[in-house]
Amino acid sequence: MRVSQDSPAPRSMRVCLSPALVDNYKLEHTIVVVIDILRATTSMCVAFGHGVEHIVPVETPEACAAYRSQGYLCAAERNGEAVPGFDMGNSPYSFMQDLRGKRLAMTTTNGTHALHRAHHAHGIVIGAFSNMTVLASWLRQQPQSVLLLCSGWKNNVNLEDSIFAGAMVEELADSFTPRDDASTVSRLLYKAANADKRFYLQNSSHYQRLIELKLQRDVKFCLRRDTHNVLPVYRDGKLLDALR
Amino acid sequence: MRVSQDSPAPRSMRVCLSPALVDNYKLEHTIVVVIDILRATTSMCVAFGHGVEHIVPVETPEACAAYRSQGYLCAAERNGEAVPGFDMGNSPYSFMQDLRGKRLAMTTTNGTHALHRAHHAHGIVIGAFSNMTVLASWLRQQPQSVLLLCSGWKNNVNLEDSIFAGAMVEELADSFTPRDDASTVSRLLYKAANADKRFYLQNSSHYQRLIELKLQRDVKFCLRRDTHNVLPVYRDGKLLDALR
Repeated sequence: MRVSQDSPAPRSMRVCLSPALVDNYKLEHTIVVVIDILRATTSMCVAFGHGVEHIVPVETPEACAAYRSQGYLCAAERNGEAVPGFDMGNSPYSFMQDLRGKRLAMTTTNGTHALHRAHHAHGIVIGAFSNMTVLASWLRQQPQSVLLLCSGWKNNVNLEDSIFAGAMVEELADSFTPRDDASTVSRLLYKAANADKRFYLQNSSHYQRLIELKLQRDVKFCLRRDTHNVLPVYRDGKLLDALR
Repeated sequence: MRVSQDSPAPRSMRVCLSPALVDNYKLEHTIVVVIDILRATTSMCVAFGHGVEHIVPVETPEACAAYRSQGYLCAAERNGEAVPGFDMGNSPYSFMQDLRGKRLAMTTTNGTHALHRAHHAHGIVIGAFSNMTVLASWLRQQPQSVLLLCSGWKNNVNLEDSIFAGAMVEELADSFTPRDDASTVSRLLYKAANADKRFYLQNSSHYQRLIELKLQRDVKFCLRRDTHNVLPVYRDGKLLDALR
Protein backbone atom coordinates (compact mmCIF):
# COMPACT_ATOMS: atom_id res chain seq x y z
CA MET A 1 0.00 0.00 0.00
CA ARG A 2 1.34 3.45 -0.90
CA VAL A 3 1.12 5.97 1.87
CA SER A 4 0.91 9.61 0.85
CA GLN A 5 3.24 12.09 2.49
CA ASP A 6 0.30 13.69 4.25
CA SER A 7 -0.66 10.48 6.04
CA PRO A 8 -0.05 10.58 9.77
CA ALA A 9 2.41 8.08 11.26
CA PRO A 10 0.78 4.76 12.07
CA ARG A 11 -0.58 4.75 15.60
CA SER A 12 -1.11 1.71 17.76
CA MET A 13 -3.88 0.71 20.13
CA ARG A 14 -3.63 -1.66 23.05
CA VAL A 15 -6.05 -2.91 25.68
CA CYS A 16 -5.21 -3.28 29.38
CA LEU A 17 -7.80 -5.58 30.96
CA SER A 18 -7.05 -4.67 34.60
CA PRO A 19 -5.56 -1.63 36.35
CA ALA A 20 -3.13 -4.04 38.05
CA LEU A 21 -1.46 -4.58 34.66
CA VAL A 22 -1.01 -0.92 33.74
CA ASP A 23 2.62 -0.76 34.86
CA ASN A 24 3.47 -3.12 31.96
CA TYR A 25 2.95 -0.20 29.56
CA LYS A 26 5.10 2.78 28.66
CA LEU A 27 2.57 5.60 28.58
CA GLU A 28 4.65 8.74 28.00
CA HIS A 29 3.47 9.02 24.37
CA THR A 30 0.08 7.40 24.85
CA ILE A 31 -3.43 8.61 25.53
CA VAL A 32 -5.15 6.39 28.09
CA VAL A 33 -8.91 5.93 27.90
CA VAL A 34 -10.20 5.01 31.36
CA ILE A 35 -13.24 2.73 31.17
CA ASP A 36 -15.66 1.90 33.99
CA ILE A 37 -18.95 1.26 32.23
CA LEU A 38 -20.91 0.18 35.35
CA ARG A 39 -20.94 3.05 36.35
CA ALA A 40 -18.20 5.60 37.09
CA THR A 41 -17.18 6.74 33.61
CA THR A 42 -20.80 6.68 32.43
CA SER A 43 -21.82 8.88 35.37
CA MET A 44 -18.92 11.27 34.71
CA CYS A 45 -20.22 11.75 31.15
CA VAL A 46 -23.70 12.41 32.52
CA ALA A 47 -22.38 14.97 34.99
CA PHE A 48 -20.54 16.88 32.24
CA GLY A 49 -23.63 16.56 30.05
CA HIS A 50 -25.49 18.36 32.84
CA GLY A 51 -22.99 21.19 33.03
CA VAL A 52 -20.70 20.31 35.93
CA GLU A 53 -17.68 22.65 35.98
CA HIS A 54 -15.12 20.02 36.92
CA ILE A 55 -14.76 16.70 38.77
CA VAL A 56 -11.98 15.84 41.22
CA PRO A 57 -11.59 12.03 41.33
CA VAL A 58 -10.27 10.91 44.74
CA GLU A 59 -9.31 7.51 46.12
CA THR A 60 -11.24 7.39 49.41
CA PRO A 61 -14.61 8.53 50.82
CA GLU A 62 -12.68 10.44 53.50
CA ALA A 63 -10.68 12.39 50.88
CA CYS A 64 -13.94 13.01 49.04
CA ALA A 65 -15.79 14.38 52.09
CA ALA A 66 -12.92 16.80 52.74
CA TYR A 67 -13.94 18.71 49.58
CA ARG A 68 -17.33 19.63 51.08
CA SER A 69 -15.89 22.55 53.03
CA GLN A 70 -14.73 24.03 49.69
CA GLY A 71 -18.32 24.00 48.38
CA TYR A 72 -18.05 20.80 46.32
CA LEU A 73 -20.83 18.28 45.80
CA CYS A 74 -19.50 14.93 47.03
CA ALA A 75 -20.22 11.53 45.40
CA ALA A 76 -19.06 8.25 46.95
CA GLU A 77 -19.74 4.62 46.06
CA ARG A 78 -18.37 1.35 47.45
CA ASN A 79 -19.30 -2.17 46.29
CA GLY A 80 -22.14 -0.87 44.14
CA GLU A 81 -23.83 1.16 46.88
CA ALA A 82 -23.90 4.88 47.67
CA VAL A 83 -21.92 5.65 50.83
CA PRO A 84 -24.32 7.14 53.43
CA GLY A 85 -23.89 10.85 54.14
CA PHE A 86 -22.80 11.84 50.60
CA ASP A 87 -24.72 13.95 48.06
CA MET A 88 -24.80 11.12 45.54
CA GLY A 89 -23.37 7.65 44.87
CA ASN A 90 -22.48 6.30 41.43
CA SER A 91 -25.86 6.10 39.66
CA PRO A 92 -25.96 8.04 36.38
CA TYR A 93 -29.49 9.14 37.34
CA SER A 94 -28.20 10.94 40.43
CA PHE A 95 -26.22 13.26 38.12
CA MET A 96 -29.22 14.12 35.95
CA GLN A 97 -29.85 17.51 37.54
CA ASP A 98 -28.72 21.05 36.80
CA LEU A 99 -25.02 20.95 37.65
CA ARG A 100 -23.99 24.19 35.88
CA GLY A 101 -21.40 26.05 37.94
CA LYS A 102 -21.11 23.13 40.35
CA ARG A 103 -17.89 21.34 41.26
CA LEU A 104 -17.87 17.68 42.16
CA ALA A 105 -15.56 15.38 44.15
CA MET A 106 -16.07 11.69 43.39
CA THR A 107 -14.78 8.33 44.62
CA THR A 108 -15.80 4.89 43.28
CA THR A 109 -14.67 1.29 43.85
CA ASN A 110 -12.78 0.89 40.59
CA GLY A 111 -12.94 3.87 38.22
CA THR A 112 -11.04 6.46 40.25
CA HIS A 113 -8.41 3.85 41.13
CA ALA A 114 -7.78 3.09 37.42
CA LEU A 115 -7.52 6.81 36.69
CA HIS A 116 -4.81 7.31 39.27
CA ARG A 117 -2.89 4.25 38.09
CA ALA A 118 -2.53 5.92 34.65
CA HIS A 119 -1.19 9.23 35.99
CA HIS A 120 2.08 9.01 34.01
CA ALA A 121 0.35 8.93 30.59
CA HIS A 122 0.67 11.66 27.95
CA GLY A 123 -3.07 12.21 28.34
CA ILE A 124 -6.03 10.64 30.14
CA VAL A 125 -9.63 10.75 28.93
CA ILE A 126 -12.86 9.16 30.11
CA GLY A 127 -14.67 6.64 27.92
CA ALA A 128 -18.12 5.08 28.08
CA PHE A 129 -20.86 4.06 25.66
CA SER A 130 -22.35 7.47 26.63
CA ASN A 131 -19.63 9.41 24.75
CA MET A 132 -18.31 6.73 22.41
CA THR A 133 -18.58 8.47 19.02
CA VAL A 134 -17.25 11.81 20.29
CA LEU A 135 -14.37 10.01 22.00
CA ALA A 136 -13.43 8.05 18.86
CA SER A 137 -13.49 11.21 16.71
CA TRP A 138 -11.29 13.05 19.18
CA LEU A 139 -8.78 10.18 19.41
CA ARG A 140 -8.49 10.07 15.61
CA GLN A 141 -7.40 13.73 15.67
CA GLN A 142 -4.56 13.11 18.14
CA PRO A 143 -1.11 11.99 16.98
CA GLN A 144 -0.59 9.67 19.98
CA SER A 145 -1.22 5.96 20.34
CA VAL A 146 -4.05 4.73 22.56
CA LEU A 147 -4.33 2.44 25.56
CA LEU A 148 -7.87 1.37 26.47
CA LEU A 149 -7.71 0.81 30.25
CA CYS A 150 -10.47 -1.30 31.80
CA SER A 151 -11.16 -0.53 35.46
CA GLY A 152 -12.40 -4.05 36.10
CA TRP A 153 -13.63 -5.11 39.53
CA LYS A 154 -11.07 -4.83 42.33
CA ASN A 155 -8.26 -5.51 39.86
CA ASN A 156 -10.03 -8.51 38.29
CA VAL A 157 -11.05 -8.58 34.64
CA ASN A 158 -14.70 -7.75 34.07
CA LEU A 159 -16.98 -8.35 31.15
CA GLU A 160 -18.60 -4.97 30.49
CA ASP A 161 -15.36 -2.94 30.45
CA SER A 162 -13.68 -5.56 28.24
CA ILE A 163 -16.65 -5.46 25.85
CA PHE A 164 -16.51 -1.66 25.59
CA ALA A 165 -12.73 -1.81 24.97
CA GLY A 166 -13.53 -4.22 22.13
CA ALA A 167 -16.17 -1.83 20.76
CA MET A 168 -13.50 0.90 20.67
CA VAL A 169 -10.94 -1.41 18.97
CA GLU A 170 -13.58 -2.11 16.32
CA GLU A 171 -14.48 1.60 16.00
CA LEU A 172 -10.86 2.78 15.76
CA ALA A 173 -9.66 0.04 13.38
CA ASP A 174 -9.68 2.55 10.51
CA SER A 175 -6.99 4.70 12.17
CA PHE A 176 -5.11 2.62 14.74
CA THR A 177 -3.28 -0.73 14.54
CA PRO A 178 -4.04 -3.24 17.32
CA ARG A 179 -0.73 -4.24 18.91
CA ASP A 180 -1.53 -6.83 21.56
CA ASP A 181 -3.48 -10.01 22.14
CA ALA A 182 -5.82 -8.23 24.55
CA SER A 183 -7.11 -6.14 21.61
CA THR A 184 -8.00 -9.33 19.77
CA VAL A 185 -9.60 -10.79 22.89
CA SER A 186 -11.76 -7.73 23.57
CA ARG A 187 -12.75 -7.14 19.95
CA LEU A 188 -13.97 -10.70 19.72
CA LEU A 189 -15.90 -10.32 22.97
CA TYR A 190 -17.58 -7.19 21.65
CA LYS A 191 -18.67 -8.95 18.47
CA ALA A 192 -20.06 -11.90 20.42
CA ALA A 193 -21.77 -9.62 22.94
CA ASN A 194 -23.38 -7.64 20.14
CA ALA A 195 -24.73 -10.89 18.75
CA ASP A 196 -26.20 -12.00 22.09
CA LYS A 197 -26.33 -9.09 24.53
CA ARG A 198 -28.54 -10.75 27.08
CA PHE A 199 -26.30 -13.79 27.45
CA TYR A 200 -23.19 -11.76 28.06
CA LEU A 201 -24.79 -9.43 30.53
CA GLN A 202 -26.27 -12.34 32.42
CA ASN A 203 -22.77 -13.73 32.76
CA SER A 204 -21.33 -10.47 34.05
CA SER A 205 -20.71 -10.68 37.78
CA HIS A 206 -21.08 -6.92 38.30
CA TYR A 207 -24.36 -6.91 36.37
CA GLN A 208 -25.60 -9.58 38.79
CA ARG A 209 -24.41 -7.46 41.70
CA LEU A 210 -26.30 -4.41 40.41
CA ILE A 211 -29.45 -6.42 39.69
CA GLU A 212 -29.42 -7.65 43.29
CA LEU A 213 -29.22 -3.99 44.32
CA LYS A 214 -32.25 -3.29 42.04
CA LEU A 215 -30.24 -1.13 39.65
CA GLN A 216 -31.52 -2.53 36.32
CA ARG A 217 -32.39 0.98 35.19
CA ASP A 218 -28.78 2.07 35.72
CA VAL A 219 -27.41 -0.87 33.74
CA LYS A 220 -29.75 -0.14 30.84
CA PHE A 221 -28.65 3.49 30.75
CA CYS A 222 -24.93 2.57 30.91
CA LEU A 223 -25.24 0.56 27.69
CA ARG A 224 -26.87 3.41 25.70
CA ARG A 225 -24.63 4.98 23.06
CA ASP A 226 -23.87 8.64 22.57
CA THR A 227 -26.17 10.13 25.15
CA HIS A 228 -23.80 13.08 25.80
CA ASN A 229 -21.43 15.10 23.59
CA VAL A 230 -18.71 15.39 26.20
CA LEU A 231 -15.03 14.53 26.41
CA PRO A 232 -13.81 14.48 30.00
CA VAL A 233 -10.01 14.92 30.12
CA TYR A 234 -7.86 14.66 33.24
CA ARG A 235 -5.53 17.61 33.85
CA ASP A 236 -3.79 18.68 37.05
CA GLY A 237 -5.90 16.42 39.24
CA LYS A 238 -9.25 17.46 37.71
CA LEU A 239 -11.56 16.22 34.99
CA LEU A 240 -12.71 18.94 32.55
CA ASP A 241 -14.83 18.76 29.40
CA ALA A 242 -12.38 19.30 26.50
CA LEU A 243 -15.25 20.19 24.17
CA ARG A 244 -16.52 23.07 26.23
CA MET B 1 -32.53 -29.23 42.13
CA ARG B 2 -32.22 -31.88 44.83
CA VAL B 3 -28.68 -32.83 45.67
CA SER B 4 -28.15 -36.31 47.04
CA GLN B 5 -26.10 -36.70 50.19
CA ASP B 6 -23.37 -38.37 48.21
CA SER B 7 -22.88 -35.40 45.89
CA PRO B 8 -19.66 -33.52 46.45
CA ALA B 9 -19.89 -29.88 47.49
CA PRO B 10 -20.16 -27.54 44.51
CA ARG B 11 -16.72 -26.47 43.35
CA SER B 12 -15.86 -23.28 41.56
CA MET B 13 -13.52 -22.50 38.71
CA ARG B 14 -11.89 -19.18 37.92
CA VAL B 15 -9.50 -17.94 35.27
CA CYS B 16 -6.53 -15.67 35.94
CA LEU B 17 -5.44 -14.13 32.64
CA SER B 18 -1.99 -12.92 33.81
CA PRO B 19 0.44 -14.00 36.56
CA ALA B 20 0.48 -10.35 37.68
CA LEU B 21 -3.14 -10.79 38.84
CA VAL B 22 -2.63 -13.96 40.88
CA ASP B 23 -2.38 -12.16 44.22
CA ASN B 24 -6.09 -11.23 43.83
CA TYR B 25 -6.96 -14.85 44.62
CA LYS B 26 -7.07 -16.82 47.84
CA LEU B 27 -5.49 -20.10 46.87
CA GLU B 28 -5.24 -22.05 50.14
CA HIS B 29 -8.12 -24.36 49.11
CA THR B 30 -7.58 -24.19 45.37
CA ILE B 31 -5.71 -26.23 42.80
CA VAL B 32 -3.91 -23.98 40.33
CA VAL B 33 -3.43 -25.16 36.75
CA VAL B 34 -0.40 -23.38 35.28
CA ILE B 35 -0.79 -22.84 31.52
CA ASP B 36 1.93 -21.86 29.06
CA ILE B 37 0.84 -23.43 25.78
CA LEU B 38 3.65 -21.92 23.64
CA ARG B 39 5.66 -23.79 24.92
CA ALA B 40 6.72 -24.43 28.54
CA THR B 41 3.82 -26.52 29.87
CA THR B 42 3.55 -28.42 26.58
CA SER B 43 7.25 -29.28 26.74
CA MET B 44 6.96 -30.35 30.39
CA CYS B 45 4.24 -32.85 29.37
CA VAL B 46 6.49 -34.14 26.58
CA ALA B 47 9.42 -34.56 28.99
CA PHE B 48 7.29 -36.61 31.42
CA GLY B 49 5.89 -38.55 28.47
CA HIS B 50 9.48 -39.47 27.70
CA GLY B 51 10.20 -40.68 31.20
CA VAL B 52 11.95 -37.77 32.91
CA GLU B 53 12.23 -38.43 36.67
CA HIS B 54 11.48 -34.89 37.78
CA ILE B 55 11.78 -31.27 36.66
CA VAL B 56 13.01 -28.39 38.81
CA PRO B 57 11.56 -25.13 37.43
CA VAL B 58 13.86 -22.18 38.18
CA GLU B 59 13.56 -18.46 37.55
CA THR B 60 16.88 -17.64 35.84
CA PRO B 61 19.33 -19.27 33.39
CA GLU B 62 22.03 -18.84 36.06
CA ALA B 63 20.02 -20.80 38.65
CA CYS B 64 19.32 -23.40 35.97
CA ALA B 65 23.00 -23.85 35.01
CA ALA B 66 23.89 -24.39 38.67
CA TYR B 67 22.04 -27.74 38.55
CA ARG B 68 24.47 -29.15 35.98
CA SER B 69 27.03 -30.04 38.63
CA GLN B 70 24.38 -32.27 40.24
CA GLY B 71 23.98 -34.24 37.02
CA TYR B 72 20.86 -32.48 35.74
CA LEU B 73 20.01 -31.77 32.13
CA CYS B 74 19.51 -28.01 31.83
CA ALA B 75 16.91 -26.30 29.61
CA ALA B 76 16.73 -22.52 29.21
CA GLU B 77 14.69 -20.26 26.95
CA ARG B 78 14.35 -16.48 26.73
CA ASN B 79 12.15 -14.53 24.29
CA GLY B 80 11.35 -17.64 22.28
CA GLU B 81 14.97 -18.71 21.76
CA ALA B 82 17.15 -21.38 23.40
CA VAL B 83 19.83 -19.82 25.58
CA PRO B 84 23.27 -20.81 24.17
CA GLY B 85 25.24 -23.33 26.22
CA PHE B 86 22.23 -25.26 27.58
CA ASP B 87 21.20 -28.84 26.76
CA MET B 88 17.86 -27.72 25.35
CA GLY B 89 15.61 -24.66 25.04
CA ASN B 90 11.82 -24.76 25.14
CA SER B 91 10.90 -26.71 22.00
CA PRO B 92 8.75 -29.78 22.70
CA TYR B 93 10.80 -31.62 20.06
CA SER B 94 13.98 -31.19 22.10
CA PHE B 95 12.39 -33.31 24.87
CA MET B 96 11.44 -36.15 22.51
CA GLN B 97 14.32 -38.41 23.54
CA ASP B 98 14.80 -41.14 26.12
CA LEU B 99 14.68 -39.21 29.41
CA ARG B 100 14.16 -42.21 31.72
CA GLY B 101 16.13 -41.76 34.92
CA LYS B 102 17.09 -38.22 33.92
CA ARG B 103 16.50 -35.10 36.01
CA LEU B 104 15.86 -31.74 34.40
CA ALA B 105 16.23 -28.10 35.49
CA MET B 106 14.23 -25.67 33.35
CA THR B 107 13.74 -21.93 33.00
CA THR B 108 11.44 -20.17 30.52
CA THR B 109 10.30 -16.57 29.91
CA ASN B 110 6.80 -16.96 31.33
CA GLY B 111 5.88 -20.46 32.48
CA THR B 112 8.28 -20.91 35.38
CA HIS B 113 7.46 -17.39 36.59
CA ALA B 114 3.73 -18.18 36.72
CA LEU B 115 4.45 -21.40 38.59
CA HIS B 116 6.37 -19.58 41.30
CA ARG B 117 3.69 -16.90 41.62
CA ALA B 118 1.19 -19.63 42.61
CA HIS B 119 3.38 -21.17 45.34
CA HIS B 120 0.79 -20.59 48.10
CA ALA B 121 -1.89 -22.74 46.43
CA HIS B 122 -3.27 -26.00 47.88
CA GLY B 123 -1.88 -27.72 44.80
CA ILE B 124 -0.23 -26.82 41.51
CA VAL B 125 -0.47 -28.85 38.30
CA ILE B 126 0.68 -28.32 34.74
CA GLY B 127 -1.86 -27.99 31.93
CA ALA B 128 -1.55 -28.02 28.15
CA PHE B 129 -3.51 -29.38 25.19
CA SER B 130 -0.99 -32.25 25.42
CA ASN B 131 -2.51 -33.59 28.68
CA MET B 132 -5.94 -31.96 28.58
CA THR B 133 -8.23 -34.98 29.04
CA VAL B 134 -6.09 -36.59 31.77
CA LEU B 135 -5.89 -33.25 33.56
CA ALA B 136 -9.68 -32.71 33.45
CA SER B 137 -10.36 -36.24 34.77
CA TRP B 138 -7.92 -35.75 37.64
CA LEU B 139 -9.37 -32.34 38.58
CA ARG B 140 -12.89 -33.84 38.69
CA GLN B 141 -11.65 -36.33 41.30
CA GLN B 142 -10.31 -33.62 43.62
CA PRO B 143 -12.54 -31.87 46.18
CA GLN B 144 -10.89 -28.46 45.66
CA SER B 145 -11.88 -25.57 43.45
CA VAL B 146 -9.74 -24.70 40.42
CA LEU B 147 -7.89 -21.62 39.21
CA LEU B 148 -6.72 -21.74 35.60
CA LEU B 149 -3.59 -19.54 35.57
CA CYS B 150 -2.42 -18.23 32.20
CA SER B 151 1.31 -17.49 32.02
CA GLY B 152 0.79 -14.84 29.34
CA TRP B 153 3.71 -12.95 27.85
CA LYS B 154 5.75 -10.89 30.33
CA ASN B 155 2.66 -10.38 32.47
CA ASN B 156 0.46 -9.35 29.52
CA VAL B 157 -2.59 -11.33 28.47
CA ASN B 158 -1.97 -13.69 25.56
CA LEU B 159 -4.30 -15.41 23.19
CA GLU B 160 -3.21 -19.06 23.25
CA ASP B 161 -3.18 -19.45 27.06
CA SER B 162 -6.55 -17.67 27.33
CA ILE B 163 -7.98 -19.99 24.66
CA PHE B 164 -6.77 -23.10 26.49
CA ALA B 165 -8.21 -21.78 29.78
CA GLY B 166 -11.52 -21.43 27.92
CA ALA B 167 -11.22 -24.99 26.60
CA MET B 168 -10.83 -26.18 30.21
CA VAL B 169 -13.81 -24.09 31.41
CA GLU B 170 -15.88 -25.75 28.67
CA GLU B 171 -14.51 -29.21 29.52
CA LEU B 172 -15.07 -28.86 33.29
CA ALA B 173 -18.52 -27.25 33.06
CA ASP B 174 -20.11 -30.56 34.11
CA SER B 175 -18.39 -30.49 37.51
CA PHE B 176 -17.32 -26.92 38.32
CA THR B 177 -19.21 -23.62 38.44
CA PRO B 178 -17.53 -20.66 36.70
CA ARG B 179 -17.24 -17.84 39.23
CA ASP B 180 -15.71 -14.89 37.45
CA ASP B 181 -15.99 -12.83 34.29
CA ALA B 182 -12.62 -14.09 33.05
CA SER B 183 -14.15 -17.61 32.78
CA THR B 184 -16.84 -16.21 30.49
CA VAL B 185 -14.27 -14.27 28.48
CA SER B 186 -11.99 -17.26 27.95
CA ARG B 187 -14.77 -19.76 27.24
CA LEU B 188 -16.10 -17.47 24.55
CA LEU B 189 -12.62 -17.08 23.08
CA TYR B 190 -12.20 -20.83 22.94
CA LYS B 191 -15.49 -21.28 21.10
CA ALA B 192 -14.58 -18.57 18.59
CA ALA B 193 -11.05 -19.95 18.15
CA ASN B 194 -12.42 -23.42 17.53
CA ALA B 195 -14.63 -21.96 14.81
CA ASP B 196 -11.75 -20.15 13.10
CA LYS B 197 -8.40 -21.45 14.34
CA ARG B 198 -6.29 -19.83 11.67
CA PHE B 199 -7.66 -16.34 12.31
CA TYR B 200 -7.01 -16.48 16.03
CA LEU B 201 -3.53 -17.87 15.73
CA GLN B 202 -2.65 -15.26 13.14
CA ASN B 203 -3.69 -12.62 15.66
CA SER B 204 -1.58 -14.11 18.44
CA SER B 205 1.56 -12.04 18.99
CA HIS B 206 3.56 -14.96 20.35
CA TYR B 207 2.56 -17.13 17.40
CA GLN B 208 3.95 -14.39 15.15
CA ARG B 209 7.13 -14.32 17.23
CA LEU B 210 7.59 -18.10 16.88
CA ILE B 211 6.86 -18.04 13.15
CA GLU B 212 9.59 -15.44 12.71
CA LEU B 213 11.88 -17.84 14.57
CA LYS B 214 10.78 -20.60 12.11
CA LEU B 215 9.04 -22.63 14.81
CA GLN B 216 5.80 -23.50 12.97
CA ARG B 217 6.35 -27.18 13.75
CA ASP B 218 6.46 -26.39 17.48
CA VAL B 219 3.23 -24.37 17.33
CA LYS B 220 1.43 -27.16 15.50
CA PHE B 221 2.53 -29.69 18.11
CA CYS B 222 1.51 -27.43 21.01
CA LEU B 223 -2.10 -27.36 19.76
CA ARG B 224 -2.41 -31.17 19.53
CA ARG B 225 -4.65 -32.75 22.17
CA ASP B 226 -3.83 -35.61 24.50
CA THR B 227 -0.42 -36.57 23.17
CA HIS B 228 0.77 -37.71 26.63
CA ASN B 229 -0.95 -39.38 29.60
CA VAL B 230 0.89 -37.38 32.22
CA LEU B 231 -0.07 -35.17 35.13
CA PRO B 232 2.87 -33.03 36.28
CA VAL B 233 2.30 -31.82 39.87
CA TYR B 234 4.51 -29.38 41.77
CA ARG B 235 5.70 -30.57 45.19
CA ASP B 236 8.60 -29.30 47.30
CA GLY B 237 10.15 -27.36 44.45
CA LYS B 238 9.90 -30.19 41.90
CA LEU B 239 7.49 -31.32 39.21
CA LEU B 240 6.63 -35.03 39.35
CA ASP B 241 4.22 -37.12 37.29
CA ALA B 242 1.29 -37.90 39.65
CA LEU B 243 0.19 -40.79 37.42
CA ARG B 244 3.45 -42.68 37.64
